[in-house]
Amino acid sequence: MSIAIICPNRDVSDWVVGLQRLDPALQVEVWPDIRHPEQVEFALCWNHPSGVLRRFPNLRCVSSLGAGVAHLLEDPSCPPGVPLVRLVDDALKQSMAEYVMHGVLDCSRGFARYRHQQMRAEWTVHQGPWNAELNIGVMGYGELGRYVAKKLADFGFTVAGWSRTPKPADTIPVLSGHDRLGDFLAKTNILVCLLPLTPATQGILNVKTFGHLPRGAFLINVARGGHLVDDDLLEALDTNQLSGALLDVFSEEPLPGNHPFWSHSRITITPHIASLTNPFSAVRQVVENYHRAMAGQQLRNVVDRDRGY
Amino acid sequence: MSIAIICPNRDVSDWVVGLQRLDPALQVEVWPDIRHPEQVEFALCWNHPSGVLRRFPNLRCVSSLGAGVAHLLEDPSCPPGVPLVRLVDDALKQSMAEYVMHGVLDCSRGFARYRHQQMRAEWTVHQGPWNAELNIGVMGYGELGRYVAKKLADFGFTVAGWSRTPKPADTIPVLSGHDRLGDFLAKTNILVCLLPLTPATQGILNVKTFGHLPRGAFLINVARGGHLVDDDLLEALDTNQLSGALLDVFSEEPLPGNHPFWSHSRITITPHIASLTNPFSAVRQVVENYHRAMAGQQLRNVVDRDRGY
Repeated sequence: MSIAIICPNRDVSDWVVGLQRLDPALQVEVWPDIRHPEQVEFALCWNHPSGVLRRFPNLRCVSSLGAGVAHLLEDPSCPPGVPLVRLVDDALKQSMAEYVMHGVLDCSRGFARYRHQQMRAEWTVHQGPWNAELNIGVMGYGELGRYVAKKLADFGFTVAGWSRTPKPADTIPVLSGHDRLGDFLAKTNILVCLLPLTPATQGILNVKTFGHLPRGAFLINVARGGHLVDDDLLEALDTNQLSGALLDVFSEEPLPGNHPFWSHSRITITPHIASLTNPFSAVRQVVENYHRAMAGQQLRNVVDRDRGY
Repeated sequence: MSIAIICPNRDVSDWVVGLQRLDPALQVEVWPDIRHPEQVEFALCWNHPSGVLRRFPNLRCVSSLGAGVAHLLEDPSCPPGVPLVRLVDDALKQSMAEYVMHGVLDCSRGFARYRHQQMRAEWTVHQGPWNAELNIGVMGYGELGRYVAKKLADFGFTVAGWSRTPKPADTIPVLSGHDRLGDFLAKTNILVCLLPLTPATQGILNVKTFGHLPRGAFLINVARGGHLVDDDLLEALDTNQLSGALLDVFSEEPLPGNHPFWSHSRITITPHIASLTNPFSAVRQVVENYHRAMAGQQLRNVVDRDRGY
């Protein structure tokens, strides 16, 4: 009996350590170095090579390494009779909240300025900007957007939300619908994009949207690269309509080495790391489902293949 | 009738704007350009030149520009019959919490690494460190330390405190006394110093203290420069006992241009800006006390000159 981790191009050593720390009796093998395919009863997959699951005749459970399961549903080698489960990781929301909190503070307290001063051994105190006058706008108010907005508000920031469809009442004001977007943007000094990527939101971070923001606003995109019109961001920075941007996602990833974002002095780039699954918290679910699968018990977070999640 | 702002070597323009925005009828003058000393009835002081208050014969109130009043109590020109008030600014605590939150996230999420990668247009995802294994230790558990610890814990971090004297029970574990310092340090991955500077805490951030921390711990000093033994920090970084440090305070400020901290790759320096009084929130107290002083009413936040605060 063993668990196979099938995640090409990803360092999974923390997953191996985390699994074996939680249950030292576990046999864990990492694809492609799997010595006994017939002993693999549990497969933990992310961007696995399509068809690879055929090599494991004795699977009793296939688990996604994340919340998404599209990669498994699209693979005909994922055996229809074997239960498919996914990770439901609250740490993902927290990871996103940490990233956005850091980005908001880095902007609002002007830390980039002090980093540049340090290079010149320069000691200059800058007053403000003062957060009492700072409004954060969270675009996209699903589970993730609501969590991030609440964390920012709890910490002391003034936060508002916007979503395409109406949301239940909340302590944070949330405007909804396309006709309220302008009102929302007009009061937003730091815009955080957490929208889902759909035909309706593709390219929504464009010159017209930026034009509704107060002059000197700051953009944080942690949703998908497809939300942003790259050239419109560069133009908004050139005209000082935007003062800067923090981007974690890009239309093409990895971001090509010759893309103008890399060297722009007012764009900060991170390589899609805002929200990473934390192996040390997520392994608990894996180990629990492994033991349930071995014991023939009902599994947690089973995917309904017809609904698709 | 006028308010005189007496704060040498400090840009007080936000204070002037804030006061006049709140009460457009106010006459505000900024030392040393005070045309009518006899009209000054309210003095707002920070690091004022000793003796200067003798030039204002009609003072009805002297206010510190901050929470501290030592500079006023030590000045014999501060007229004994005139009430002395100070600012009690919750925004100071929030400003400190913001600074520490940013520093903790910058360390725990490894953002410095991504800033360096951006300079090389390098796209590499680093896993971890993961916060589930991260303990933050707040040394100094007065009003400020407690506030910062609570904000970090509310956000989701694991936090413990240490203070020299026992503190009332709290949801956050707080060890106290010198004989528990080692236990506290042994579990601390990010050490935040918020101690008062006294003979007992002078030089407390030294090689022995660092030696109790888990290898690779990170230091944030936002208390006073006198807490830190500079050479001991450099040694602890050289031996990798500490992985890095964020310093806002120094034994000599401004930090001299030739100090080795400036160019150390694992030391981040800010020019004593962790906790700045926010003029736009603090002016409300100043204007209220000004009007109370003019109307002969009881003032807010009056200093007891015998107690010293």
